[in-house]
Amino acid sequence: MSETLAASLARLPVTFGDIEAAAGVLADHVKRTSFDRSRTLSGIVGADLWLKFENLQFTATFKERGALNRLSALSADERRRGVIAASAGNHAQGVAYHAARLSIPATIFVPRGTPTVKIENTRRHGANVIEAGATLEEAAILAIDHGRERQLTFIHPYDDPMIIAGQGTIAIEMLASVPDLDVLLVPIGGGGLISGMAVAARTLRPGIEIIGVQAALYPSMYNLIKGQHLPMRGDTLAEGIAVKAPGRITSEIVRALVDDIVLVTEPQVEHALSLLITIEKTVTEGAGAAGLAAVLANQERFRGRALGLVLSGGNIDTRLLSGVLTRQLAREGRLSQLRFDIADRPGQLATIVAVLSSSGANIVEVSHQRIFTDLPAKAVLLEVVIETRDQSHLASTIAALRAAHLDVDVGGN
Amino acid sequence: MSETLAASLARLPVTFGDIEAAAGVLADHVKRTSFDRSRTLSGIVGADLWLKFENLQFTATFKERGALNRLSALSADERRRGVIAASAGNHAQGVAYHAARLSIPATIFVPRGTPTVKIENTRRHGANVIEAGATLEEAAILAIDHGRERQLTFIHPYDDPMIIAGQGTIAIEMLASVPDLDVLLVPIGGGGLISGMAVAARTLRPGIEIIGVQAALYPSMYNLIKGQHLPMRGDTLAEGIAVKAPGRITSEIVRALVDDIVLVTEPQVEHALSLLITIEKTVTEGAGAAGLAAVLANQERFRGRALGLVLSGGNIDTRLLSGVLTRQLAREGRLSQLRFDIADRPGQLATIVAVLSSSGANIVEVSHQRIFTDLPAKAVLLEVVIETRDQSHLASTIAALRAAHLDVDVGGN
Repeated sequence: MSETLAASLARLPVTFGDIEAAAGVLADHVKRTSFDRSRTLSGIVGADLWLKFENLQFTATFKERGALNRLSALSADERRRGVIAASAGNHAQGVAYHAARLSIPATIFVPRGTPTVKIENTRRHGANVIEAGATLEEAAILAIDHGRERQLTFIHPYDDPMIIAGQGTIAIEMLASVPDLDVLLVPIGGGGLISGMAVAARTLRPGIEIIGVQAALYPSMYNLIKGQHLPMRGDTLAEGIAVKAPGRITSEIVRALVDDIVLVTEPQVEHALSLLITIEKTVTEGAGAAGLAAVLANQERFRGRALGLVLSGGNIDTRLLSGVLTRQLAREGRLSQLRFDIADRPGQLATIVAVLSSSGANIVEVSHQRIFTDLPAKAVLLEVVIETRDQSHLASTIAALRAAHLDVDVGGN
Repeated sequence: MSETLAASLARLPVTFGDIEAAAGVLADHVKRTSFDRSRTLSGIVGADLWLKFENLQFTATFKERGALNRLSALSADERRRGVIAASAGNHAQGVAYHAARLSIPATIFVPRGTPTVKIENTRRHGANVIEAGATLEEAAILAIDHGRERQLTFIHPYDDPMIIAGQGTIAIEMLASVPDLDVLLVPIGGGGLISGMAVAARTLRPGIEIIGVQAALYPSMYNLIKGQHLPMRGDTLAEGIAVKAPGRITSEIVRALVDDIVLVTEPQVEHALSLLITIEKTVTEGAGAAGLAAVLANQERFRGRALGLVLSGGNIDTRLLSGVLTRQLAREGRLSQLRFDIADRPGQLATIVAVLSSSGANIVEVSHQRIFTDLPAKAVLLEVVIETRDQSHLASTIAALRAAHLDVDVGGN
């Protein structure tokens, strides 16, 4: 290790010793998840791809690690009084589950309108769930107030040295299995995961490259570190890393130890998530697929190197997942929406059905649109969703329809 | 072991010694998959539930085991001439992958119209894929002829002692990890998997109960063993076990060693598959979820016992998977199709949208049906797909619509 790096590590608010201590605290209580090479994905991206399955933690998120490390540091008095956190997602699960295990009363603030299934998931672990505030930020402010009045310890989701040390244990496990990793690709929301992992990895393997990954819709740490002002907006599939405000401690560590931050688009995340489903047979949330998305989007940069990725969580809404898979089918030419501009008279639908049938295309859905169309009153827009085997089958089907003089467009995906 | 059982085992065409030998052949070439207890599913079904993750084999199917064991038994001459098999699915993958590894030429017959993605998956392993026959049965007959002419060894998907012995290695692994299992639940198609597992399990733990699981749409082994004539028809999600003709060898072993066969319905398989996705974050095909479906459908029968289930494969079509997840949302009251019988005049849609919006329901899709409805000509059927948080949110939304004097029905799922 260079003297510069050693000095830099020594100055940081989280040390390798803190992470080693966390590893001791976590042993037997948090799963040491598999870290496996994906042969097929390695072939696809032209690199040596290793996956850390944190989506297979009991609560399907790495957040358990930091939460347990933080809870274990509470005094007997603090434990008796209890803890409070604000989160509708993974942090809530991690805190609620381990607090219950340790018989620490836990209160979790969630924004109003949080889906019942998420509330139930947290309540099932025995936490007292309170709906308050219109947004997560408001819920957090209300939670801090509520906790101060009742002397509950507020558990921050990322900007806390004990939380960061807990997450860092992942890098220790990865490098213990595969000591010669060249690069770590780690999703960044508030920055807790990458901060802990960077301290551990740089200590164990000073030359390792550490790359953060953020959703292009939420480039908060990216902006801060790169001095940019990209907008933050919109719904991202990677909601687990859609954090507007990076932590103070985490941004200090990221600035000192992280080599680069790359942004991934929504289609890139969707594609990565689909590949993990179809190839690895594993379910990740959007944030959990962000690392693979970054590799897919930057294949030249990572070619031939040994890459360690964290599948950080698996808590994805079923409807979102179903939508991702359906759009993937559309991208593969297997599910398409055809739009026919036809005269509103008998026989047209019959012709279309006959051509589709002889092409071997499967009709999934048919609907007529008279109201939401700008065609003349006598015309009608017919929308037909079809299933085809692949892009070339779709192309031959469209050609057959056009050969039958039908005016057809393929809907955009 | 009772003398009766010992005598019965000794008479069977596959012995425990064959399976132990297969285990030696497979070591280092087939993954020793995890066998993990699911805490959450155990709680749901009230039993001690252990899952064998054969869906995480390289080709996402246990079929590799039998295929490799069979291929390894070929003479040098047979290897040089090559092998042939008929399958569009898991057996094709298993044979093609290991034949390529062993430099044995492999020809795979698939029925015409097999999705390109399945053909590509097999071809990628280097197999010569030939499309022939309208059904899998026809493809198999043609494959046998083709192979005979060219002196290729035909690799049967299940009715072969070497195949059965290969599959049996799964039970050795399960009982090595958890010696006190009370029950094995094993999907049955042709019967290769359960036959091998039954010989191994009855030898290692004579008192273990062995239950086969078939799709109610394809009760072939069930009919044979129970002397029944239930119809076999229709598309099942569990296509991996939709086999019309049980094997001769496999049915002899099943008759001797299997305690019972239970049938599972399509909704039960869908529910089990959804739970494996949402709770275990693991992707199985329908057949792979059949064991869990059987436990869910017979909870009293299995209560409090240690159950070993085989997640036999993970090769599910993305569109099927997406459909299963969507129907699961419908069952949970989260995605619903509302049908409004409204007069065909302005304002109706506006009212509906206003009520839905004030109820907090999210509109996913709107369509007017004038053609496929039996309502009077002046009326129109409006279909609106909405997203709600859960069953109670759906109920309150419907109540609000009815309070606004709208004639609404919820579409059946």
